Formats: sequence, structure tokens, C-alpha cells
Amino acid sequence: MNRQQLFEQIKLKRSFLCVGLDTDIRKIPDCVKDCDDPIFEFNKRIVEQTAPYTVAYKPNIAFYESMGSYGFLALQKTISFIKEQYPDIFIIADAKRGDIGNTSDMYARTFFDVFKADAVTVAPYMGSDSVRPFLQYSDKWVILLALTSNEGSADFQHLVVGEDGERLFERVIKTSHEWGNEDNIMFVAGATQARLFKDIRAIAPKSFLLVPGIGTQGGSLEEVCEYGMNSECGLLVNASRSIIYADSSEHFAEKAAEQAKLLQIDMEKSLLEHGLL
Amino acid sequence: MNRQQLFEQIKLKRSFLCVGLDTDIRKIPDCVKDCDDPIFEFNKRIVEQTAPYTVAYKPNIAFYESMGSYGFLALQKTISFIKEQYPDIFIIADAKRGDIGNTSDMYARTFFDVFKADAVTVAPYMGSDSVRPFLQYSDKWVILLALTSNEGSADFQHLVVGEDGERLFERVIKTSHEWGNEDNIMFVAGATQARLFKDIRAIAPKSFLLVPGIGTQGGSLEEVCEYGMNSECGLLVNASRSIIYADSSEHFAEKAAEQAKLLQIDMEKSLLEHGLL
Repeated sequence: MNRQQLFEQIKLKRSFLCVGLDTDIRKIPDCVKDCDDPIFEFNKRIVEQTAPYTVAYKPNIAFYESMGSYGFLALQKTISFIKEQYPDIFIIADAKRGDIGNTSDMYARTFFDVFKADAVTVAPYMGSDSVRPFLQYSDKWVILLALTSNEGSADFQHLVVGEDGERLFERVIKTSHEWGNEDNIMFVAGATQARLFKDIRAIAPKSFLLVPGIGTQGGSLEEVCEYGMNSECGLLVNASRSIIYADSSEHFAEKAAEQAKLLQIDMEKSLLEHGLL
Repeated sequence: MNRQQLFEQIKLKRSFLCVGLDTDIRKIPDCVKDCDDPIFEFNKRIVEQTAPYTVAYKPNIAFYESMGSYGFLALQKTISFIKEQYPDIFIIADAKRGDIGNTSDMYARTFFDVFKADAVTVAPYMGSDSVRPFLQYSDKWVILLALTSNEGSADFQHLVVGEDGERLFERVIKTSHEWGNEDNIMFVAGATQARLFKDIRAIAPKSFLLVPGIGTQGGSLEEVCEYGMNSECGLLVNASRSIIYADSSEHFAEKAAEQAKLLQIDMEKSLLEHGLL
């Protein structure tokens, strides 16, 4: 899926919501625990109910890996299900990988060829040859960690590394312009640091930002839109736990949809305010 | 396995060799390709032949993930086999993970509880709460990326971030002292940058370094020892492709052992020169 197609989907759904499928066997409702394949069943029902309000799904690979080979199969089934039933929805493998060239090449094969994801999150610490293998695939995306939503982001990402107070997260974005562009690289930018989005927009005006950190982590959607929205929206705002674990009864999927719809309504309002609908 | 036990193993085997199990289905010899479980069979034979010269094995998770759920099973079988047959050998899951706290917690469960690895490599970019969950396990290790062996390491790791020319890789090491110590954190330091090991030793004199980059990547074992060895050796030097793909005939495992033995002989010489044997 290319940038223009993604923006078309955002306008069509009047939403830039990404739902994080951080599916934890210890947290899913009892009513699905007895199914043959509880992880897939949970994901399927969440997707069926939330798809009208959602332009992207983001399974975090950690949750599937922790269940060994069963988790891997459940992830494959989930992505296949979404691709078949909702081919216009963007799928992000939240993997935060990054290794020397020949190894990153293996990771790219895994997430793009085996799992058929549209995008994969990549950690920048190892530099160019750890990122470039992911950029060899047409209509696929790298989503590079820049400014993350967690407390530990302060440890290194804010360090001043250049003249005029340039910080590491800004250098990461600037350097990545040598490897790709706004048609194949997005950046992770945490909602908890939304005021810094204006600094990101100064160096990456057209790029899409994947924004975690609203909901459970406390970031504000209003601030994210104020400082981050561009003329093609340029935002995919993720919520995970606040949607998928909104309820633990047999109505969990409908309750998840209610939460997704509330966010979609706020997003529609922002898109209208910015003249994008 | 704790630091003292690891040093005991190094003295016993007169070696600080780590063999990287970067097992690629496209590269393994034809003679194992027809087995029921070619990846496990290849690893088993490599391990049986190289174990006398080896204190650690390091499967790079990318290679197993790229084969989906089959790769996961092969990895689990490989680690179980090593743990059963060679319980004194240290096992490193080369995963280069790192995510927000609750997700890193899932990764820690995967590699320590499911796979029973002794150590996992972790990327530092997301800071404290992405690393700390891995430090909750006693006698388990984080191996933090500091100065990697690849070309792209120059992009960010060498950036000056503090007074007196302090570079990012040095800041990563110093900051990690707030999270753990030389008994639960090691650092990745690439052999291709061995002259910088003296700067690492200035701030991490007692820590073990996991050193990739000799062999195919071109680093020098002699320089690694000159600048990196401490009074408890403090080095695990990894070779992957130059050992496991030394030969593609039915004698591949014996040829791998020959390569491992050549490195062990050089390592023994270094240990003797440093008065550690």
C-alpha cells in the first residue's frame, strides 16, 4: 500500500486509528479461552468488530513469540484473515528489529514474505545497513523508532548530538533521509511527547508518523493532531490495551468497537478541523 | 550461569569461543537437507563436533523466525539439546530486542522461560524500561548493543553526546550501570572496532564483552585480546559463518570443528600471554 492509498483509506473511514493486537493469553476473556485457537479467535472477533473504525492493525510480535510456535501460527492466521477479509487495511508488524545487513535481510523476508505485513518497525541504533534491507521491497514500509512513548526514551533519544541543539531522534530522522523517503519510511513518535512533533514536522513534513501512547499510556489525541497532522493527515494513531481489553465479558469485541468508535469520532473531528474531509 | 562460572569454563576449555548458529536453510549442506528436521540436524552435528572448543553458542533468532513456526521448533530443540548434552555451555539468544516495559517483559519470558537461554542481546535505543525487565531473572544476562561490528555503527554510535568527547556507545555503557552491573550486563563490541575497546575498558573494566566480527567480517582476534582482555578474560568472541559454513560436503561438521579448533588454539595462546592459565 502506498502513501496515497493510505490517505484515501483515512478519508474513506474518516479515521486514522491503528489498533494494536497485543494479544496476551493471560488477559483474553474466559469465553474464548476454551476455543481450539484462542489467540486467533480473540483477534478475529476484535477485527470483525473494530474494522469499520480502523485503517491499520499492529500486532506486537513479542506477544506471539512468547507462546512459541503456537503463537507464530496464530499470528500468521490473524494476518491472513485480515488480508482476506479487509484487504485495504494496513498491517504493521511491530517487531522493532535491526541487525547487521545479512540478518536484517532475513528479518525483512520474515515480515514481508512470510507474514505479508505492509510495514515493520525497525530500531535505528545499528545504522544504515541494518535498515536498508527492509527498503528493498516495493510498496512496503519501514517504521523507524525515532521518539518513543516510554519513560526510557529520555535516556538517549533526547541527547544533544549536533549543532543548534540537534537531538538524537532528530539525527535519526535526518540520516534516514539518505536511505529512503516519505514513500517508504515512517517514524514512531510517541503521543506522550506530542509537543515535540513540531520539531519532527520541521524535518519530516510529509512523512507518516506512527503514534503510540494514547489510551493506557496517557498521551493526548488533541495535542497529537495539533502538532503532528499534515495535509495528508500524516498520522496513524495507535491504541492497544484501551481497546482490546476494554471488557472481559462475552461482549468484549462489541465493547472494543465502542472504544474504537469513540476515537474515530474524535479523529473525524480533527480531520474536519484541518480541512481534510 | 554467573560470571565466575563462565570464567571457570573459559579456563577449563582454554577458549572463549562463541559459535554463532546462524543456520540458513539455503546454505546448509545437501546431505542434511533430506532429514526430517534439517535445521536441527545441522545444528546438532555442528554442536557435537565444536563443543570441545566452545564455551557459548549464539543462535541468531532472525534465521529461525524466517522459517515461521517450523524455525521456532527447530530453535527450541537445538537449545534443549545443548542444555541436556552440554549443560555448562552458555547460550545466547541473539535477538536484539527492546520495547516498552510490558512488551520487553514478554520478550524476557520468551527467551528466558520458553527457550531457557542464559542471555539475550538487547538494543538500547528505548532506554531504561526497555532493558530492565530482562534484569529480573537471576543468573541470566542482558547483552546490550554498544559498539556493533557493522558499517552502519558509524551513523549513530560514534556521535558525540557529552563533554570531553563522550560518544553515544560510551553513554549507553555508563547509563546501563544504573540498571545493572558486571554480573548481569555484558556489552556487544565489534571486533572491527577493536582499538576502541580501550575506551570501553576505561568505563567497564570488569564486564564481559560479546565480540562479533572476526572471521567473515574481518576483525582481528589479536587486537581484540590486546585491547579488550581483562583479568577474568572478559571476552566471548563469536564466529558464525566462518565456522558453520566452512565446508558443504558430508564432512561439514568435522571441518567446522577444525575451524573452531584453530580459533581455540589462538585463544589459548592469548590466555597464556595474559597469565590467565
